[in-house]
Amino acid sequence: MTLQLPEIQRPDRSVGRLIQNRLDCLTKPPGSLGRLETIALEYGVMRAMTDLSVGRQAIFTFAADHGVSLAGVSAYPRQVTAQMVLNFLRGGAAINVLCRHYGIENIVVDVGVDHDFGEAPGLISRKVARGTRNFLEEDAMTREQAIRALEVGMDLAKGYDLIGTGEMGIGNTTSSAAIVAAVSVMPPEEVVGRGTGVDDERLRHKTAVIRQALERRRPRTDDGLDVLVKLGGFEIAAIAGLILGAGSRRIPVVVDGFISGAAALIAVRMHPACRDYLFFSHLSRERGHRRLLTVLEGRPLLDLDLCLGEGTGAAIAMDLVSVAVQIYNEMATFESASISRKPGD
Amino acid sequence: MTLQLPEIQRPDRSVGRLIQNRLDCLTKPPGSLGRLETIALEYGVMRAMTDLSVGRQAIFTFAADHGVSLAGVSAYPRQVTAQMVLNFLRGGAAINVLCRHYGIENIVVDVGVDHDFGEAPGLISRKVARGTRNFLEEDAMTREQAIRALEVGMDLAKGYDLIGTGEMGIGNTTSSAAIVAAVSVMPPEEVVGRGTGVDDERLRHKTAVIRQALERRRPRTDDGLDVLVKLGGFEIAAIAGLILGAGSRRIPVVVDGFISGAAALIAVRMHPACRDYLFFSHLSRERGHRRLLTVLEGRPLLDLDLCLGEGTGAAIAMDLVSVAVQIYNEMATFESASISRKPGD
Repeated sequence: MTLQLPEIQRPDRSVGRLIQNRLDCLTKPPGSLGRLETIALEYGVMRAMTDLSVGRQAIFTFAADHGVSLAGVSAYPRQVTAQMVLNFLRGGAAINVLCRHYGIENIVVDVGVDHDFGEAPGLISRKVARGTRNFLEEDAMTREQAIRALEVGMDLAKGYDLIGTGEMGIGNTTSSAAIVAAVSVMPPEEVVGRGTGVDDERLRHKTAVIRQALERRRPRTDDGLDVLVKLGGFEIAAIAGLILGAGSRRIPVVVDGFISGAAALIAVRMHPACRDYLFFSHLSRERGHRRLLTVLEGRPLLDLDLCLGEGTGAAIAMDLVSVAVQIYNEMATFESASISRKPGD
Repeated sequence: MTLQLPEIQRPDRSVGRLIQNRLDCLTKPPGSLGRLETIALEYGVMRAMTDLSVGRQAIFTFAADHGVSLAGVSAYPRQVTAQMVLNFLRGGAAINVLCRHYGIENIVVDVGVDHDFGEAPGLISRKVARGTRNFLEEDAMTREQAIRALEVGMDLAKGYDLIGTGEMGIGNTTSSAAIVAAVSVMPPEEVVGRGTGVDDERLRHKTAVIRQALERRRPRTDDGLDVLVKLGGFEIAAIAGLILGAGSRRIPVVVDGFISGAAALIAVRMHPACRDYLFFSHLSRERGHRRLLTVLEGRPLLDLDLCLGEGTGAAIAMDLVSVAVQIYNEMATFESASISRKPGD
């Protein structure tokens, strides 16, 4: 089984000039809408269009379990992954409220939950396995499993103007911190955080688990697929695939927080061109996120002390993309509104 | 003519405990929604209620001209104030697009524009005078005018669950920087910024104008009304009045950027209790804003490099208040969703 990486074109910088010209004609001092103007510009460059719209939007919330959750690294028990998937399907989670508020479609994908959901209306079932294996003892997944999970994401990244990433998986901040430490070659204590809220003692344990796993697995730091196989999660693989697929179709992606960021790091290591299609939604309170964003050279749009995942930060930032494009489309120009630009006009 | 300051009660901290209890039962790790949780809590404390809703929302955009605009402190000519008011009424400005996007009512109030609008549908006419006088030469307004402009704001602050501030007035960053320098006793060069985008030479001139005005007017730094009379603008007075009126009716106010912040400073100096009803929407790119927020002990919700005014930053942040309250109202609890909080649950 071989992974077919999609072709990803460079974004169209020539479109940027045209968009900037229009932004500078709108009835405001040039640049005074700050990052809203940058967002509209970047969005157009990614889409390679000057006629912009953000009509069809979705957040994909991929759920999967983690072998390492058996190593006592989380404040919540493993079955919470499945319970939260059911909560998503009933509309009771934070991501549901946010998606309702912003008019964003939320798509829940089981890519590896350790539970048999049977017939669950609204759930997209793409289970690769009932959770990864414990990477303290063996590779988290086989190469074939990693490729299948990546392909789940790649296949789903179509039919939208803007895509957000999200996830649910007890244990996945441990997997993500291990990935970030491995790829960015940083000591685990620099990137490990409290996840769902572990205490000091469990944080030390979590750090030790990651250090030991890195020593035992020895992933090749420049090989995204190898890192994924050894330390990843199925939801992390699916998000990486989503990012690769979206980039190949010129669909901008709004990356949620720490776990989605770790997936973005994998995707960028596999295919650097996908970086040009990413917005970074927010700076998470999770400890390693600032470092991770530095490695990805991403400046987050929001800083609201969030650390929930699911796609919650992505939802808020996607609405900023929407409103930025609406400003670009709907504001009057100095000429159309007969407004002076200098004395005597 | 004497100013009748309204009574402002302390916010109800006992309600905060009840709201926090509910937030901690929602299906997420405690505190993981960060500032969204804080916003919901603060909103309830301000409203003194646990049944929260943000149904009726408005941004008041007060427009007025400034005598000091004749001193060459702006990149745009004075008539732009009136031209932008007409743009607001036609729906072509940034604030219009943002209010449409978020479903917020935008109320445009002429409190002192140097233009006769005649019959202008949609415009609330409360003109105190056709602009202030040039505070380089004389007090910007009389005490009576200041009180009338304050009362315009106080009277309008009713019938809403959440109010945002906004303004339009060529020259008003000069007035605001003078106010901030006076009240916080800082040298003008620390708080003056580029406003609508003046070049280096004009920035030096603007700073010199403010320094000279402060020397000539000598406002009493602890007397908000005196500062307003000597250095203010009618829109700044109206915003200060709006804040005082809203506080007296337990209506939370989302303060826009630098100019609204200067108005908030005046209001807080006049009646410190109103501070407890304020959210600060964003950190403006305008130079003195960080200092101003420090003086007001306000932490902005957003940092998007905006520096436009009109209420644009307030609009974005008001939607964060809305979504925070929606999360508080609509999320499932651990119990209702049968989700485990610890192993064996």
